[in-house]
Amino acid sequence: MALRSDYEGQTCSLARSLEVVGERWTLLIIRDLFFGVRRFTPLQENLDIPRAVLSARLTALVGRGLVERRPYRPGRDEFVLTECGLELWPVVVSLMGWGDRHFAGAGAGAPRVFSHVACGTDLTPSGHCPACATDPPPEQVEMRPARPGAPGREDAVSRALRRRHRLLEPVAT
Amino acid sequence: MALRSDYEGQTCSLARSLEVVGERWTLLIIRDLFFGVRRFTPLQENLDIPRAVLSARLTALVGRGLVERRPYRPGRDEFVLTECGLELWPVVVSLMGWGDRHFAGAGAGAPRVFSHVACGTDLTPSGHCPACATDPPPEQVEMRPARPGAPGREDAVSRALRRRHRLLEPVAT
Repeated sequence: MALRSDYEGQTCSLARSLEVVGERWTLLIIRDLFFGVRRFTPLQENLDIPRAVLSARLTALVGRGLVERRPYRPGRDEFVLTECGLELWPVVVSLMGWGDRHFAGAGAGAPRVFSHVACGTDLTPSGHCPACATDPPPEQVEMRPARPGAPGREDAVSRALRRRHRLLEPVAT
Repeated sequence: MALRSDYEGQTCSLARSLEVVGERWTLLIIRDLFFGVRRFTPLQENLDIPRAVLSARLTALVGRGLVERRPYRPGRDEFVLTECGLELWPVVVSLMGWGDRHFAGAGAGAPRVFSHVACGTDLTPSGHCPACATDPPPEQVEMRPARPGAPGREDAVSRALRRRHRLLEPVAT
């Protein structure tokens, strides 16, 4: 039996949110944009999805106002989160923290640690800074690998994402 | 081109979380469990999805440890969130708040308001109680319609969900 293509019967903000970000891969694309991966080919290689799928998802995100397309040289665009997209940070960080606590596998724990740039304190799994009693916006968050030197994928983007860097700043690839 | 069935190349807690809750309808089922809808037929009627889909999603949620099956009479089970499932509340409330702010439609706003039982203060869209400076757990949250008397669906579950009640408490249907 075919599923309907959206959640039209549901008078709920969650249903509307899922129409926008509930497609397969969409939240992972948004995660990579938070991590500073902004260009099509690095996104495609890091996510390892078909180009047509990535292209369709990015076009939808631009159309819904979560992502802005910015030319960086003639004929080439970068993809940058808008204010609306940036406001998904609490959702992304909470869902990562929940996955770490419950589904990381024995002894694995979080692969990445987030800290508050202003004070250097590691954030809680819901993105809260216990030292400052605030939820820092993503541009005030730094990311580093939990286990430096641990084996991982060796493509340029994966290596760049294992270096300590501030969220949203373009990763060097 | 077929998509892979999971996100196996992604060393990320978000990818793992999406394997568990990223299936279509799954977060809406979890939302209804937070709202106190616990039984199969009310869930099916409120979500308006095929019985086979609801059954498959609930079985997966039980298998992953997010939901517990509890008999309420011979041959009939209720579905109750486990501790692991309850920890999704920040994700669910943040995603609802984000949808309200950006996709509710002109003048619509949030259909539901959440407040902190202990002090009666309305929560922020990320589920924070500004009066107590705390994020109340769902069992300490009360839900009420934002516009009492506004037209809505008239089935028993929808009507019950429009009455002021505490999250997780079984809705009378």
